[in-house]
Order: sequence, then C-alpha cells, then structure tokens
Amino acid sequence: MIKALVWCENIQNKTQEDVKAAYPEGMHNTIAEFLNGDPNITAETATLDDPNCGITEERLAGIDVVLWWGHVGHGKVPDDVVEILHKNVVGRGMGIICLHSSHYAKIFKRLMGSSCSLQIPPPGHAAEKLWTLLPGHPIAAGIPNPVDIEIEECYNEYFDIPQPDELVFNAAFAGCGSFRGGAAYHRGRGKVFYFQPGHETYPIYRQKEIQDIILNAVYWANNKTR
Amino acid sequence: MIKALVWCENIQNKTQEDVKAAYPEGMHNTIAEFLNGDPNITAETATLDDPNCGITEERLAGIDVVLWWGHVGHGKVPDDVVEILHKNVVGRGMGIICLHSSHYAKIFKRLMGSSCSLQIPPPGHAAEKLWTLLPGHPIAAGIPNPVDIEIEECYNEYFDIPQPDELVFNAAFAGCGSFRGGAAYHRGRGKVFYFQPGHETYPIYRQKEIQDIILNAVYWANNKTR
Amino acid sequence: MIKALVWCENIQNKTQEDVKAAYPEGMHNTIAEFLNGDPNITAETATLDDPNCGITEERLAGIDVVLWWGHVGHGKVPDDVVEILHKNVVGRGMGIICLHSSHYAKIFKRLMGSSCSLQIPPPGHAAEKLWTLLPGHPIAAGIPNPVDIEIEECYNEYFDIPQPDELVFNAAFAGCGSFRGGAAYHRGRGKVFYFQPGHETYPIYRQKEIQDIILNAVYWANNKTR
Amino acid sequence: MIKALVWCENIQNKTQEDVKAAYPEGMHNTIAEFLNGDPNITAETATLDDPNCGITEERLAGIDVVLWWGHVGHGKVPDDVVEILHKNVVGRGMGIICLHSSHYAKIFKRLMGSSCSLQIPPPGHAAEKLWTLLPGHPIAAGIPNPVDIEIEECYNEYFDIPQPDELVFNAAFAGCGSFRGGAAYHRGRGKVFYFQPGHETYPIYRQKEIQDIILNAVYWANNKTR
Repeated sequence: MIKALVWCENIQNKTQEDVKAAYPEGMHNTIAEFLNGDPNITAETATLDDPNCGITEERLAGIDVVLWWGHVGHGKVPDDVVEILHKNVVGRGMGIICLHSSHYAKIFKRLMGSSCSLQIPPPGHAAEKLWTLLPGHPIAAGIPNPVDIEIEECYNEYFDIPQPDELVFNAAFAGCGSFRGGAAYHRGRGKVFYFQPGHETYPIYRQKEIQDIILNAVYWANNKTR
Repeated sequence: MIKALVWCENIQNKTQEDVKAAYPEGMHNTIAEFLNGDPNITAETATLDDPNCGITEERLAGIDVVLWWGHVGHGKVPDDVVEILHKNVVGRGMGIICLHSSHYAKIFKRLMGSSCSLQIPPPGHAAEKLWTLLPGHPIAAGIPNPVDIEIEECYNEYFDIPQPDELVFNAAFAGCGSFRGGAAYHRGRGKVFYFQPGHETYPIYRQKEIQDIILNAVYWANNKTR
Repeated sequence: MIKALVWCENIQNKTQEDVKAAYPEGMHNTIAEFLNGDPNITAETATLDDPNCGITEERLAGIDVVLWWGHVGHGKVPDDVVEILHKNVVGRGMGIICLHSSHYAKIFKRLMGSSCSLQIPPPGHAAEKLWTLLPGHPIAAGIPNPVDIEIEECYNEYFDIPQPDELVFNAAFAGCGSFRGGAAYHRGRGKVFYFQPGHETYPIYRQKEIQDIILNAVYWANNKTR
Repeated sequence: MIKALVWCENIQNKTQEDVKAAYPEGMHNTIAEFLNGDPNITAETATLDDPNCGITEERLAGIDVVLWWGHVGHGKVPDDVVEILHKNVVGRGMGIICLHSSHYAKIFKRLMGSSCSLQIPPPGHAAEKLWTLLPGHPIAAGIPNPVDIEIEECYNEYFDIPQPDELVFNAAFAGCGSFRGGAAYHRGRGKVFYFQPGHETYPIYRQKEIQDIILNAVYWANNKTR
C-alpha cells in the first residue's frame, strides 16, 4: 500500500467564485479521492489551515509520497516545514509531486537550487497539448500522445529549472507557447516530479488522462523495493 | 581557424521551383557563405554530386566541424561514407551539426542509436517559435528568446531520439505542436548538435538569428583546447 | 508475469576449463534459474547454438526483457538478429540488459551509437567495489553500498558510451581503476541497462547482491503500466 | 579578458603547520597566481577576513567566474553573501567553481538542492587517479587520462549531488574508493563545476594537470558569446 499525502493551500477555493465552482469540495479532496480509487494507494490530506501545515516528522514518517499544490500562500509555509519535507525527500527517500503553481513553492525551489521562475504570456489562458517525450517512462505508461487540455493557464519558457533527469512531457500552448510540463528528478534518496497542468479555475484534475498521469507519478515516486 | 565542411544533398534545388526560389545558389553555398563571413571560420562544401559524396578520410582529417543537410537523398549516401563520418566524430572528435530533415540521415541515426522518426502533422506548415531552455549554453549565447520563424514545416513529438545531454531549444508550432528543436550530445570524443529549422522551401538559413545559432554551434562543436 | 529471455553465446564454457568450473551448467542456465526463483518472472534461454540465435520476431513478441551475455562470439550474431532486437527495444518497448563483455555486443553498440570500447589494464583481474550513485533508483533498491566482488576482470575508463540517463553504479578496482558499471538508458519505447560484473571465469552471477541487482533491473526494464 | 575571483576561507593556513607548509602564501594566492599566468584571465582574491567576505553586488558585477574553497569556515559565511552569489550565478550567468571541501559550502548546497554529504573512509588519505569520462568536453581538453595524484584525502560515494549535466571526471582512490570528482551543471543562466582535488595539506594546486583542468573550467564557466 502506498501512503500519499495531498497538500493544498486551500485559500482561493474559499473566496474566489471561479475556483469554488471548479473544486467545490477543495482541490485536495478531489485529488485524494481519485488516488483513493486505486487499490494500492491510501491518500490523506493536509492544508495551510492545519497546525504546522499538517506536516510533522511523525506524520511524514508514515508517508511515501507527498503531492503539493500551492499558489498565493507559498509565503505562509514556515521554513521549518520546508526543512522537514526536504529532509524526508533527500534523506529518507519520500517522493514529492509538485503541481502547477507549486513550481514556486518553497520546497520545490529548495530541491531544485535554481529560481524556478517562468513567464505567463498573453493570452493568459488557452488550449494546451501535453506531449510525451519518453514513451517508455513509467509516468507515461498508457497515456495518449498528446493529451488535450481544453483550456489552461499558459506557462512559458524560460522556466528556470535544472535540466530534468527525465523530461517526460512537454506542454505546448496555443500561440506557440512551450513549457517543460512533466519533469522528473532524483534528489538524494527521493524522487521529485513537477507536473504543470492544474490551474485552479479549471477542473483539470477531474480529467481522466491527468488523473492517470498523477497516479503513474505516485507509483513512480514511491521508493519501494520490488 | 575552424575548418567547416557544409554538406548538402543538392537535389531538390535543381528540380523543384519553390526550392530553387528559396536557394537559387544551392543551400550549401548559402550556409558556407555566412560561415565564411566569420573571421575564425573557413567553410567549404560538398554534395551528393561529388565522388564518394566528397567525404574521404584524407579530406576529413582537415575538417573540424561538418554541417549536414539531407532529405530525399538519404539512401544515396553509401554506408562507408557514414562509417568514415562516424569514426571521425567518435574517435577523433570532429563535430557534426545535423540540420532539419537530417534527423533521418544515416549518420545521425548511426550516432543516436534510436529510430529518429517523428511526426509531420496537419497543417504541414505554420509559424514557429524556438524557445531557449538553457540560456547559459554557448549555442544560445546572444540569441533572443523566442526566435520567431514566419513559416516552417511542422515537426512533432514523439521524436525518437535519446534524451539530449543538453536540450538547448524547443520548437513550438501553431496549433500546439512541440518538437525538441535544438539537441546537443557528446558521442565519443566528438559533439553532435541537431537543429530543426531549415525546410528547403523557405529561406530560413538567411534569417539572422538562425545564422547566429548555427555559428554558435560551429564554435561549440569545434573540439579545441583553450 | 514478466517474461525474460536469457541469451548467452555458450562458447567458452564448452572448451575452457576455468569457465566450465565457474558455470558447469552454462551461464544462461545459472541466470535463468535465479530469475525463475522470483514469483513474478518466467525466464527461458537461447544461445548461439539455436537456429537464428533463438531470436525470431514471433518469439520476441512474447518477451518483455532480454538479458544478453556475449564475448568471443559477438561476430557470429547475424545482423538481422540485431535488427530484430533493436526494433523490439526501440519500437515495442522490450527491455534489454547487457552484461559484462556485452558492452561490445552488436546490439549494444547499435543502441548506443558510439564505439563502446574500453580499456583492460594490468593487472587484468582484481578486487572490485560497486558503488551506488542513485540510491533512489529502483535498480539500487535494497542493494548495499558498496557491493564487494572478491575478484573480477578490471574494466577501465575511458568507456566510450553516451552519458547515461541514469548512472546507477560506478565500479572501482584495486589500483585506482574506475568504470561506469551500471548505466541506464531510454532508447525509443524501451529501456537499456548495461551492467559490468560477470567475467566468465568467476561465479559472480551466483553472488546474492549481483542477483538482486539483476532482478531489480528486470523489473525496471519491464515496460508495463501500473 | 575573463575576470576571476578566487575566494578561500584562509583559516587553516594561519594555524596549522601542514597547511602552512603546503601553501605558505595562502591557497587563494597560489590559485590566483597560476590563473594570472594565462593571458586571457585576470584573477583577484577575497577571503573570510574581508568585510562581507569580500563579496558585494558591486564587486560581483565585474566578475565572470568565482572559484570557491572553504572547509572549517563554511558556517562563517553569512546567508546574504550566499544569496548574492546565487543571484549572480542563476540570474546573471556568473560561473562558479567549487573546490574540494566546498562540496559542503553553503553556496554549493544552495545551488544543488540536495544535502551534498559524502563519506570519508579509512584510510583517510591515499593515491588518487582522476579518470576522464567525457574526452570531448572543454574542461577535459588536453588533460591526460588518468591524472595521477600522489596523495589526496579520500572522498567516497554516496556523494549526495543531483546527477550532473556532464560528469567530466571520476576519481578513484586506493582501496577501491570512487567519487564523482568533476561534475558540471547548468543553474539558470550560469554554470557550476565541482572539482574534488585539493586537500589543504597537499600542494595539489601546484600540479600542472590540476592547474590545467582549473584553467579549462574557468574558460568553460565564463559565459560569453563567441
């Protein structure tokens, strides 16, 4: 059984109508629900509302993979929470999957060592195609090429990340936008996957192919022997 | 002085009106001319019309970097020419730059070890933006991000190449197309750069930014001590 | 169930006393036996003695991972057998694990695109330590760091391979020898693992840690969805 | 002209006899001197003794490449100095070369994103051979393979660094030790090179081949157009 912890900041869905409409139950619950639909995964959730963000040494000791979604609340995550996460990834081999605007989460920047900045061009939102660059990678297993996303926030290069160990997907946006949308890394004993889709105003985490990629990523990031 | 050899198959520009219009002097001469405009480069040319494709052990011994453009004539290049090129790259450290449809040249496939196949989607031709993914790479030095190409043949993933040592550029096409357009590799003692722009019916090798990238690539591929 | 095919040339163990002593049953049978000890793997064998090396399109269609050991008989493997293997790796996603002197097998050189040459220094044989460079990689799961091998043939850099996508192990030999001993690659839809230990005169494939690494590699190279 | 800044902590050579014997003039001056022997490099120095470690925004604005050597004084470098260095590497493209025990310097750990820990095994000091893994890399140009170092501190895997973009050298030590001794990275617009040789009690920076590697690295890390 893979024990997953879905962390979302849980801010915009309380106050912003379009986010509430996309994820009335809160995005962390949407994600945990489809993860829990897999017979080999148990997913729980945590948010900024929990004491210490719901992240303690004791709790993480029982977690195999963390999924992280943050945006307007990055600065509200205390530095010691970031250190606990970092130590568990690098030193213990916990996996972490950073979603969408979490390119700018403290823990992602800490693991990457670069600025992790990017461009958001006009038009801000458009159609996306997600292309598979490594068809033999476990995260791409069974995923159609490309995956069409009806509308998504456009992210553009230059995305200031280290070269991925494995660039699994590249995202293309209407108007010739381009973004490394699925990037896999080893960091110490752990694995890190950055996955671009998932703007808060669109129900992208309800799309079957996106759920399949995230499920694949959870299996991949889980650091177990055969 | 860097000694470059520009090899083009020299077929379509003899018989096809649109190619003749784009490169009346022959594409190899266009490329050699802008290379020769650099004070540190001397470029000569060779084509399928030359005996043994103009490629011999003796001639290559004096060459630092080969630039290769082929398309309809890949099959006309004898296997022993491919072996001479391969040995000079891997064993002696000669650089090679494979342009556009040379993704399917025998020498490129031989150096990559994969099939090097790709997709050409409808619409076949559209606007392209070439995005810099490694701004600190010498091939990207001084190049604007992105480079706009007015119209180009669309190449799409999955492009069956090994993961590049350095993915310097990614190409995006109208309609959410995506292609690893500037891929750098070490192979043995030599360096290999694949560069996507340059369809034969458009004068893309006359565009300043494209010439600058190719000039950068020639410097990079030249395997000299400081 | 993972279907593995263990291919060995089966030459030296017929005529050379020290090889016969190390592997009286034939090395392919030694390897197949410990693979078959895993409840999720079924392994069969093939050798140079079989018609067409025991490699046909029909047979490979049912194989998930090939393990390959060759040395003095590389030249006896017909080119069309190499093409069938290559097509199955790159096009269909079959895994391949190339062992020890198979660094120079035709199929490995074909997949790598470089010369795959190396140095064998004096002393020819010495103690080896195999160091883990990627502790979170599935092939390193549960493997002690380092693995001690009492005596092995010394292989030395420069080993002319492309930079691995993942360099999982490095081998060190008495006398300050160094060799990239566990190198993982994507090639097309398939995965390739080169693993250095296994000189024919020592019963290295009977060592528990070496068997564990090969078992891990078979799981990793098997290209299945979760 | 490449403007280099050689930074050393300048501690042990004041108080420890064996360090004073190896570098009576201070290691920063040894390194700056051979750099200044190159007609295209101007090198200056800074140490922990300087206000703000000799690192200010104004000063770095005129620097192309920093060389960094620290050991017992890592903790004495203020965090804001680390941030200035980081910003200049990632954002402006300044190169940085981290030497020996600077694997544990704050700036190196910040750029890597991992723990950067390693093992120092018994015997602590032994003969080293430095093997070239990328003969076509500019940092390896003209360097013999291997480079012999008579005696050096032994560093061993697991070295907790991200996979290098280019693993240029591997270090092997007597007793089958192994260490990624020459690792090249892109970080943002800048380049980073970690180079293992240079324990403070041995005059390793006086060895011709080591000086040549460092000179090559300074040229490589200098982020200039052709």
